Amino acid sequence: MVRSGGNHAEQGNDVSNSEVIEGVYLSSKLDLEELFADVFRPYADKVRIRLPRDIEDPSRIQFSVAWYPEKEAFTPYPNLRLVSSIAAGVDSLINCPSLPASAHLTRIRDNAQADMMAGFAVWQVVWHHRNMGHYLQRQAFSTWDQQNLSVSPKDYTVGVLGYGLMGKAIAEAVAALGFPVVAAVRKQPSEAPAAGISFETGASSIERVAARSQALINVLPLTPQTENILNEDLFNLMPTGARLIQLGRGQHLVDEDLDKALASGQLGGASLDVFRTEPLPEDHRWWRNDKILITPHHASDSSAAIVAKQVTEAAIAAVDGRVPENTVDRTQGY
Amino acid sequence: MVRSGGNHAEQGNDVSNSEVIEGVYLSSKLDLEELFADVFRPYADKVRIRLPRDIEDPSRIQFSVAWYPEKEAFTPYPNLRLVSSIAAGVDSLINCPSLPASAHLTRIRDNAQADMMAGFAVWQVVWHHRNMGHYLQRQAFSTWDQQNLSVSPKDYTVGVLGYGLMGKAIAEAVAALGFPVVAAVRKQPSEAPAAGISFETGASSIERVAARSQALINVLPLTPQTENILNEDLFNLMPTGARLIQLGRGQHLVDEDLDKALASGQLGGASLDVFRTEPLPEDHRWWRNDKILITPHHASDSSAAIVAKQVTEAAIAAVDGRVPENTVDRTQGY
Repeated sequence: MVRSGGNHAEQGNDVSNSEVIEGVYLSSKLDLEELFADVFRPYADKVRIRLPRDIEDPSRIQFSVAWYPEKEAFTPYPNLRLVSSIAAGVDSLINCPSLPASAHLTRIRDNAQADMMAGFAVWQVVWHHRNMGHYLQRQAFSTWDQQNLSVSPKDYTVGVLGYGLMGKAIAEAVAALGFPVVAAVRKQPSEAPAAGISFETGASSIERVAARSQALINVLPLTPQTENILNEDLFNLMPTGARLIQLGRGQHLVDEDLDKALASGQLGGASLDVFRTEPLPEDHRWWRNDKILITPHHASDSSAAIVAKQVTEAAIAAVDGRVPENTVDRTQGY
Repeated sequence: MVRSGGNHAEQGNDVSNSEVIEGVYLSSKLDLEELFADVFRPYADKVRIRLPRDIEDPSRIQFSVAWYPEKEAFTPYPNLRLVSSIAAGVDSLINCPSLPASAHLTRIRDNAQADMMAGFAVWQVVWHHRNMGHYLQRQAFSTWDQQNLSVSPKDYTVGVLGYGLMGKAIAEAVAALGFPVVAAVRKQPSEAPAAGISFETGASSIERVAARSQALINVLPLTPQTENILNEDLFNLMPTGARLIQLGRGQHLVDEDLDKALASGQLGGASLDVFRTEPLPEDHRWWRNDKILITPHHASDSSAAIVAKQVTEAAIAAVDGRVPENTVDRTQGY
């Protein structure tokens, strides 16, 4: 029989599909296919990822790219060997009850994203240290008005909660500006830190960091242990007038405790990039609080190209029976 | 005879005054005595500095602390061995016609100031790179609005004009955030630069740096060679939409050329900390240009305590017949 071009092309697809590893996009929040279809194209001979509605045989699906999946999202896929986040955080996956215990769980580790995060964090530190908002307000009134510059960076300690790829990049960038940096770590890292960085280790390290921090940057992963960790007790340990730079997850922060600390002056200001409800509702009180600088969960993004590359490599490793790079320890949550 | 306590004390002063080196504050812009009297107090057994009106015998004056002195300010003092600036820049001294050729000319070299300058410069780089003003505007309208994050720091080259204490600190801090940094230098420094920093050297190095710079930071000293160096020709070499971060001196910039470049879109924005007339007049057009971020010559200040220490050391060295540290090469202007 004479085959049509269309049929021929389909047959071509079938042949190559017999070798590619099949995956599924699972998200209640984002159209992952729209976000990632282009960047996965160079890996079309290795992986093929589709939305659930386009998958005929769920048993052929060996991996998932997921972000805030629905509760039962993983249930239809009995043969998952890998579930990958699209970012550094995996809390939305670990918190999903249908996440299969047998699949490797991976996250994205993106050096360019860490640089971006560090730039954003440094900007926030200088925003608070130098009270840069003052100049913006003065410009609006055509007014030349210098401020007191008396606080030298070396007298302004910056705390960092979370010392993974992001926290380390932030700590190094802040220390490079002459600020003493103190980071909370579970145990002393084997590698010596860059000049200007010191550690608080072990139990209550977070409290001891907070007690020293004129500005406190949170980039902790969200786990049951870290949920609500930015609370009144912690704020009360901080120097009066200290600043909070919240880049982790909305659930780290007890919202009402921040309001109280800002109202009393215990905290002098806050930069918030993450919120319990995102987008932050238009009528939320924080938009109009001039002690709070709001950004729309935008401190950094992993690049889509890096996601495609790392997911593809992880899928190949998982199907080969190897442990993929950037596999998460589910007991620790990161 | 019985001496009164008062007379006794005066005699004590006379004895110690016979050993102290006498100096004079000379400025048409600042009350240097008010600014520095306290910080020089710990050095009272070594130096004594007063205002011209309080000096009985100008021939005893061996040094001057000066800042924008009047044209004939130095003329009354025939025995000056040292003239020190109160900051990194000496252009207001070199441009003073009565500056004695025989005196050493020194400036302040303050590492904490360099850190402060670096923090300010990094803040400006991220302001432009991440378009941070967008978030401030959106907050004013209670609006959650993410922007495209597609430009990675590694694809955003930052140029630095001037590579002394300040320029080097700026270059290192910017490079630590993953931005490629290119600095213009007279000749290749003997010390290898930090990772991410490269140099353009020799003639037309400034033009070659500009041609590569998405953001261009100026911290050049003001000399006849660098006056008006930020001009239309230079802007036209830069990538379309590039940003200018002007932290040097107002006289580096041809004001009308900036207006033209911003109006045409050749430059996408500018941060200006220094101006031909300071304070910038209230009715100046730049206050209301939303492509220009204005700060009141406040990127950094040398600490008064460092000024007192370095001036005292320089005065002792000059009177001893040694060349003080941080002596300026008048032919180069820095």
